Amino acid sequence: MPHSTRRAALRATLRDRELDALLVTNLLNIRYLTGFTGSNAALLVSADSDEATVFCTDGRYLTQAARQVPDLERVIDRPCDVTLAQRAAKAGLDRTGYESHHVTVEGLDTLTDAARGTELVRASGLVEELRLVKDDAEVEALRMACAAADRALASLVEHGGLRPGRTEREIARELESRMLDHGAAGPSFETIVATGANSAVPHHRPTDAVVHEGDFVKLDFGALVDGYHSDMTRTLVVGQAADWQRELYELVAASQAAGRQALAVGTSYRDVDAASRDVIEQAGYGEQFLHGLGHGVGLQIHEAPTLSKAGDGMLLPGMAVTVEPGVYLAGKGGVRIEDTLVVRQGAPELLTLTTKELVVV
Amino acid sequence: MPHSTRRAALRATLRDRELDALLVTNLLNIRYLTGFTGSNAALLVSADSDEATVFCTDGRYLTQAARQVPDLERVIDRPCDVTLAQRAAKAGLDRTGYESHHVTVEGLDTLTDAARGTELVRASGLVEELRLVKDDAEVEALRMACAAADRALASLVEHGGLRPGRTEREIARELESRMLDHGAAGPSFETIVATGANSAVPHHRPTDAVVHEGDFVKLDFGALVDGYHSDMTRTLVVGQAADWQRELYELVAASQAAGRQALAVGTSYRDVDAASRDVIEQAGYGEQFLHGLGHGVGLQIHEAPTLSKAGDGMLLPGMAVTVEPGVYLAGKGGVRIEDTLVVRQGAPELLTLTTKELVVV
Repeated sequence: MPHSTRRAALRATLRDRELDALLVTNLLNIRYLTGFTGSNAALLVSADSDEATVFCTDGRYLTQAARQVPDLERVIDRPCDVTLAQRAAKAGLDRTGYESHHVTVEGLDTLTDAARGTELVRASGLVEELRLVKDDAEVEALRMACAAADRALASLVEHGGLRPGRTEREIARELESRMLDHGAAGPSFETIVATGANSAVPHHRPTDAVVHEGDFVKLDFGALVDGYHSDMTRTLVVGQAADWQRELYELVAASQAAGRQALAVGTSYRDVDAASRDVIEQAGYGEQFLHGLGHGVGLQIHEAPTLSKAGDGMLLPGMAVTVEPGVYLAGKGGVRIEDTLVVRQGAPELLTLTTKELVVV
Repeated sequence: MPHSTRRAALRATLRDRELDALLVTNLLNIRYLTGFTGSNAALLVSADSDEATVFCTDGRYLTQAARQVPDLERVIDRPCDVTLAQRAAKAGLDRTGYESHHVTVEGLDTLTDAARGTELVRASGLVEELRLVKDDAEVEALRMACAAADRALASLVEHGGLRPGRTEREIARELESRMLDHGAAGPSFETIVATGANSAVPHHRPTDAVVHEGDFVKLDFGALVDGYHSDMTRTLVVGQAADWQRELYELVAASQAAGRQALAVGTSYRDVDAASRDVIEQAGYGEQFLHGLGHGVGLQIHEAPTLSKAGDGMLLPGMAVTVEPGVYLAGKGGVRIEDTLVVRQGAPELLTLTTKELVVV
């Protein structure tokens, strides 16, 4: 059971920090530790055992909680965080950690009132630290999410989805629909479809702009499977590619390949960014690469680590990240190429399998 | 311009509280005050004027910010909250409010470091207080969102979308697709389709369960238009309604009508809940009404006010709320009927127009 294994890993952290328990209030962390997918819950993870660990949700999720969290004591009450803070106090715990990166300033007041009898101790990012390295179940969910996106794009192209005359909105909608056909619960974020000069806007949102012959079409999209988010960008050309388009594309593709090659255990986040960025800077387009190289993906579409100039830390096996350099020529067009990969001993595992050759449709 | 009017209203609040500025970090509040829809921003609203107000986002949103926030000084930098805390200090402001219900315990440390020179003062819920009462532009967006949902359901039913043999998942997907056809940017939350005994689970998620003759089909769904969320539940019967279904339906419909009738300016939140709940309790089903009566809708699908037993406050004209009683008979079936309405002097304005007569398809 991955969830009990994850809780055991958290318990080791709690003991290291001399905490008797951690009050988990971030819903994604609760999902990670229990599998619960509802919209309201809290979890008091005991440093001792699962037997002393308590899950809380409200009446709407009575049956769902019994199904998803059969292996823990369940309390039905709200507000859940207050209920479990009281439990911690009643259980006579000395030091109860709370997620100080998630609990608000006002929220802490409420918890402190409820928890009289136990000391509330700042405990920031303990579960996120575990989530940084994906276990097999997580990688499998990411694989399925990436596969749904790959298949959706392939079927979109195969069915002429990018033909001239279609709008960005139509294409986005079809792409999302095809992801559902291929097993996604939904898109993992708002699909970006940007045609012509719009492709120079890094985070363009689909409009009624129409695809023309000779346009770049930039597609940045992903699928959600079992709560896990895939993320992929491909930039295609419609009709025939002009020389400047081929050159720009090859530059970004070379930069992206350099980023992937740098994705090795022990490399610092900023060195991965630099490996990819250098290629673009040496070609004189450093100013047109407007963002960081990549980010972690998992239960969130953007999570740690951050691969950027400011990225502080070192790659570990099992981290799932994107590599997505781009060059954006305002008013003209832009190219971004993005994969989702898992860091491994040796070469990284590529999860988004769609070709990165320049595709002309 | 609604955004400058909203900022002016906020300024009046700031002066009342003797704050020189408010550092807004909640993205929905920033959207409310500026129209900006990106995923990273902060806003320093001066108590003096829009001229002294500063908006901050990062490089991805350079062009979008220029378009959406043309009327304020824009800074491109990240992290935005830190940048604007420094601005407040440099501008020599004495007291700068921060959103203490949104800023985390860790986040406050970072802001405090950045803001040396200005006193950071707790200021919880100031923008939410304004958002509680919807202005004309907001109600219009809610109207469009509700209309998209109404039309989607009508066309679903008209095209036989609820015929026996279809799965909950298929129905949910078609309903969402039809909302897009009718102008929605997307569903406003995860569509609930629950057939047969599943209708007794208040927040059931669509499965491969199939519609059978004689089933209740409960549909709880909404559309997103211009960032505003509609919310509606209808429970239909497939084929022919049994007596117990008619009785249960009529009970919930009577309870829902009582709730709508209680929705008057000056009524307390809990009295609205009580008006609806009494009908169900008197029929002996109080224990089967597992949740509160309703909630505010707007830029969030769930926002203030909360219409429940614990609801503390009084209805004001312009509040947009749901009224959604339900009775759930475990293992058998359940009925929920939900509208979105705007509180007005006199009768409330009903935004979800689909009939509440029992529909048999």
